[in-house]
Amino acid sequence: MSSFMIRTDLALEARESAEEGAEELRGVCVEEDYHEESEVKVTKVVISSKNSAKLLGKPVGTYITLEAPAMTQPDGDYHKEISEELAKQLKEIIPGMDKELSVMVVGLGNRDVTADALGPNVVDNLTITRHMVKEFGKAAYGKNRMHMISGLIPGVMAKTGMESSEIIKGVVEKTNPDVVIVVDALAARSTKRLNRTIQITNTGIHPGSGVGNYRNSITEEILGVPVVAIGVPTVVDAATIVNDALLKMVSQVDTDGIELQEELRSGLSELYNMYVTGKDVDYEIKQISHIICDAIGSALEV
Amino acid sequence: MSSFMIRTDLALEARESAEEGAEELRGVCVEEDYHEESEVKVTKVVISSKNSAKLLGKPVGTYITLEAPAMTQPDGDYHKEISEELAKQLKEIIPGMDKELSVMVVGLGNRDVTADALGPNVVDNLTITRHMVKEFGKAAYGKNRMHMISGLIPGVMAKTGMESSEIIKGVVEKTNPDVVIVVDALAARSTKRLNRTIQITNTGIHPGSGVGNYRNSITEEILGVPVVAIGVPTVVDAATIVNDALLKMVSQVDTDGIELQEELRSGLSELYNMYVTGKDVDYEIKQISHIICDAIGSALEV
Amino acid sequence: MSSFMIRTDLALEARESAEEGAEELRGVCVEEDYHEESEVKVTKVVISSKNSAKLLGKPVGTYITLEAPAMTQPDGDYHKEISEELAKQLKEIIPGMDKELSVMVVGLGNRDVTADALGPNVVDNLTITRHMVKEFGKAAYGKNRMHMISGLIPGVMAKTGMESSEIIKGVVEKTNPDVVIVVDALAARSTKRLNRTIQITNTGIHPGSGVGNYRNSITEEILGVPVVAIGVPTVVDAATIVNDALLKMVSQVDTDGIELQEELRSGLSELYNMYVTGKDVDYEIKQISHIICDAIGSALEV
Amino acid sequence: MSSFMIRTDLALEARESAEEGAEELRGVCVEEDYHEESEVKVTKVVISSKNSAKLLGKPVGTYITLEAPAMTQPDGDYHKEISEELAKQLKEIIPGMDKELSVMVVGLGNRDVTADALGPNVVDNLTITRHMVKEFGKAAYGKNRMHMISGLIPGVMAKTGMESSEIIKGVVEKTNPDVVIVVDALAARSTKRLNRTIQITNTGIHPGSGVGNYRNSITEEILGVPVVAIGVPTVVDAATIVNDALLKMVSQVDTDGIELQEELRSGLSELYNMYVTGKDVDYEIKQISHIICDAIGSALEV
Repeated sequence: MSSFMIRTDLALEARESAEEGAEELRGVCVEEDYHEESEVKVTKVVISSKNSAKLLGKPVGTYITLEAPAMTQPDGDYHKEISEELAKQLKEIIPGMDKELSVMVVGLGNRDVTADALGPNVVDNLTITRHMVKEFGKAAYGKNRMHMISGLIPGVMAKTGMESSEIIKGVVEKTNPDVVIVVDALAARSTKRLNRTIQITNTGIHPGSGVGNYRNSITEEILGVPVVAIGVPTVVDAATIVNDALLKMVSQVDTDGIELQEELRSGLSELYNMYVTGKDVDYEIKQISHIICDAIGSALEV
Repeated sequence: MSSFMIRTDLALEARESAEEGAEELRGVCVEEDYHEESEVKVTKVVISSKNSAKLLGKPVGTYITLEAPAMTQPDGDYHKEISEELAKQLKEIIPGMDKELSVMVVGLGNRDVTADALGPNVVDNLTITRHMVKEFGKAAYGKNRMHMISGLIPGVMAKTGMESSEIIKGVVEKTNPDVVIVVDALAARSTKRLNRTIQITNTGIHPGSGVGNYRNSITEEILGVPVVAIGVPTVVDAATIVNDALLKMVSQVDTDGIELQEELRSGLSELYNMYVTGKDVDYEIKQISHIICDAIGSALEV
Repeated sequence: MSSFMIRTDLALEARESAEEGAEELRGVCVEEDYHEESEVKVTKVVISSKNSAKLLGKPVGTYITLEAPAMTQPDGDYHKEISEELAKQLKEIIPGMDKELSVMVVGLGNRDVTADALGPNVVDNLTITRHMVKEFGKAAYGKNRMHMISGLIPGVMAKTGMESSEIIKGVVEKTNPDVVIVVDALAARSTKRLNRTIQITNTGIHPGSGVGNYRNSITEEILGVPVVAIGVPTVVDAATIVNDALLKMVSQVDTDGIELQEELRSGLSELYNMYVTGKDVDYEIKQISHIICDAIGSALEV
Repeated sequence: MSSFMIRTDLALEARESAEEGAEELRGVCVEEDYHEESEVKVTKVVISSKNSAKLLGKPVGTYITLEAPAMTQPDGDYHKEISEELAKQLKEIIPGMDKELSVMVVGLGNRDVTADALGPNVVDNLTITRHMVKEFGKAAYGKNRMHMISGLIPGVMAKTGMESSEIIKGVVEKTNPDVVIVVDALAARSTKRLNRTIQITNTGIHPGSGVGNYRNSITEEILGVPVVAIGVPTVVDAATIVNDALLKMVSQVDTDGIELQEELRSGLSELYNMYVTGKDVDYEIKQISHIICDAIGSALEV
């Protein structure tokens, strides 16, 4: 029954699905760590073989997940403890942090759809320095060493008529950043992870990822510079939720899975392009945007 | 198995549910009409007895539904044919249209959540005349007869700390409109109706209606003036979708419903306060807001 | 030449204008204080006689002004030092702070005009508690003593057709707050004060104040409860700027002021309803909204 | 006294200034036309010599200005008569309209500053077809001949750290449009022209134009494809307004201009980066965005 395509952008969940009832996966290395002070659970999944990449439906690379249930709780300081933890992880995964970098932060998604506005929100709130450093030098900031930060919000294909990857590649070629950080809203499998999990990866963004309004890869291979992706699951695919509920029932009533599969498929097609979000999505997206924005600022020392 | 609470704000759907496998309902009168030119199907449901009101979970009153699949199609003129149809229905249901009226249009919902922003969007775009007529008279508009239009966007309880009904009642008492028109995003049972159905009713808004961020009734009984509600289903409750899929399956596998019911309930609780929307929700909400806005303007001749 | 009406909402500037070339004003008491740590200059103007009130064009009452040039500088913590200073002043001017209060915060202005969106922005970002305390009690927050905070964004007359004061009074009568805090964008006389000055007063808001889209007083007399107004000059009236430049010149060329006055008046009429803002108004308004929001939260301990 | 730099983006105003008290300009050809039905005055200024270009501070090329006082009046149809007039002019100035074109529409300006949001608003509301035509062909639209439309909102340098021209050039090189249409908010000299004048030109956008947040040219020379610019004056430079008022007075009191000039300059420096807008700027910008959006759609037949 695994033929039904489960939609998740989290490597963590892909691994959980793959391991259900199976022996441990080869070529997948997992490290878990709980930070008591910040109450953040950090899981590092390293996919090192092509085989395991295929099994999990995720490319070879490093995936770091921060799980922080507190993220959805209101906090005047926007959860500084979580953004500091995230900043620490970013410093490790961004290559060349010992040098002065030119970093382009790209906010993917549709700013007019609440659950998809995470990327644009982060870039909107970021401290941008590239133009200042270029015009006045880092002396203007009283610093000896300073990264240049630029920001881009490409918009979604329905509103631009262009692939996000085309736009980003064009701007990268003109402005030559050393690294691209891509921020995006993701789809999770379970509603329990919505707006309380942050995934960082050095594998970029892949077709079909995200809430689904853009396509084509945004990766080092395509852009020619390293790509670090920061993603937060803000929606669950509606078909996934129904599928999961059905499978659970089917296993209980112990009946013929194959027939059901047909029924299920036709029922789910109606849910194509439908997404599940929570009712406090506006507040939660705003708060996570702040956390990510602060983390990028802290990692890049502005 | 009907004990599970199906969530729909559409009288049309409540009736369909109630009639499944049952004889026709007494105290419910239904008229259907198809307007070929505008391709709008108009259904009028009149609930006249307390008994049928209880059965359908909707108060006694008139419910007019316009179904127009074209509503989600882009149109430079914002589907003038649909707004004209809606205007015609509004003129019939708004009491006292032969006199000069003072009409307060209230946009319920959360402007920061795309699917819930319908009400605020409509009021934002409306032509407001009350202050002009009061200051310069209708002569300023070169008219002999003119309605005064005012607009109110009360906001949702999570952001105001107050019930919408408290705010509206306070403002009604100070400014004395003859009629209140309330515009609101609704929950439907089926994704097929999302953003292509408009319901008008003279029964006002009731607890638990809408996307769910406000409570307490907004009715003639509470406000002291007639209330006309215009609603559009923009979301489906996530639990409803799963429940419907499960029930469909259960009926097929012909197994013991009671046990399943338990399983189902515990699975659904996780979906509490979760909603399903489509991926083009931003465009569709914008277009429907225009249609409703134009219809109110046309009905009130501004 | 003082017959030309200078438009300023700052008591500080009204006093400066009045004192130009005149002996000290009776019935006006001024205290200045410079806080080195926060780099905030606090000026307290107390107008105690009707005569001085008339001279200054400001009602009898207390006006506290915080001047902080740093307010327009970017700061990751949104200038905590300024918001703490503001919180301290608010605690002194809000009556009854030793008891548990129900406080309604009203954000005046037009959220669609950048320079006028200060009030709506502050209320949008505020922690609202009234509905939670009413439903779950302060125990839900683990507190023995807790103020209830509600928020209202009435909108501007051009979009509501109603006076802001009508809307506020209606809601006050229904929800009975102990105090109303009104936040508003003001007009200053000098561009030097834009977005770096905060005025607090216990006199409320008066006709013709603000950026100009609402009228009628919002005062204790009208609402029946104490009103504390927080205002920030975000615009300068265009006519004022031209008038000031002209007067300066006239005094230099030592010519007949009376004739010029006529010329000046006709030239200025074209600037009616025109405002001057700076080019970074969006960033600056956002930052000041945060400062005020944090200050109210800190003063009310949420 | 002409040494003081008058800031206007309208060729019409530049010509008026240059012609004050001077003989007619050589190398500048002017045609005026009044369209009675639409009440639009169309003025075509063709600058054909380098000398006249220098005198007017505008590059060689064609400038068409539509003046329509009605533009600021509310209209349910968003002034279809004006958008049709504009569409007619666009069809003439866009090169290659007899062939199938790929057209990129670029919305310059800052979407968070009301008066500068014209460009982003237009692109936000445009019907985008490039991705659809590429994926499904024009047959999907039931057409034999169809232009492909794409849209780009580059953002302002303070928020991107990059020149708009860098971003646009990068995207043009990747997606190869045949023509670029740039929409931008302009600065006028007189408040009388605000939000009621539309300028079209085939000369592109030049340094220092617009409300001032981006720089570097956006021209055929730079982008490699023809550029048509559509601009609407939405602000007046504050210094310009004061300067004009002062000069008028100086001429009356018949005194020594040279000394005043000094005084004037020091006074104006304080107004650097300050702009004058009207109080209904939000409504007016929204309506003009619709007019331009409809005109582009009509000219490109979508």
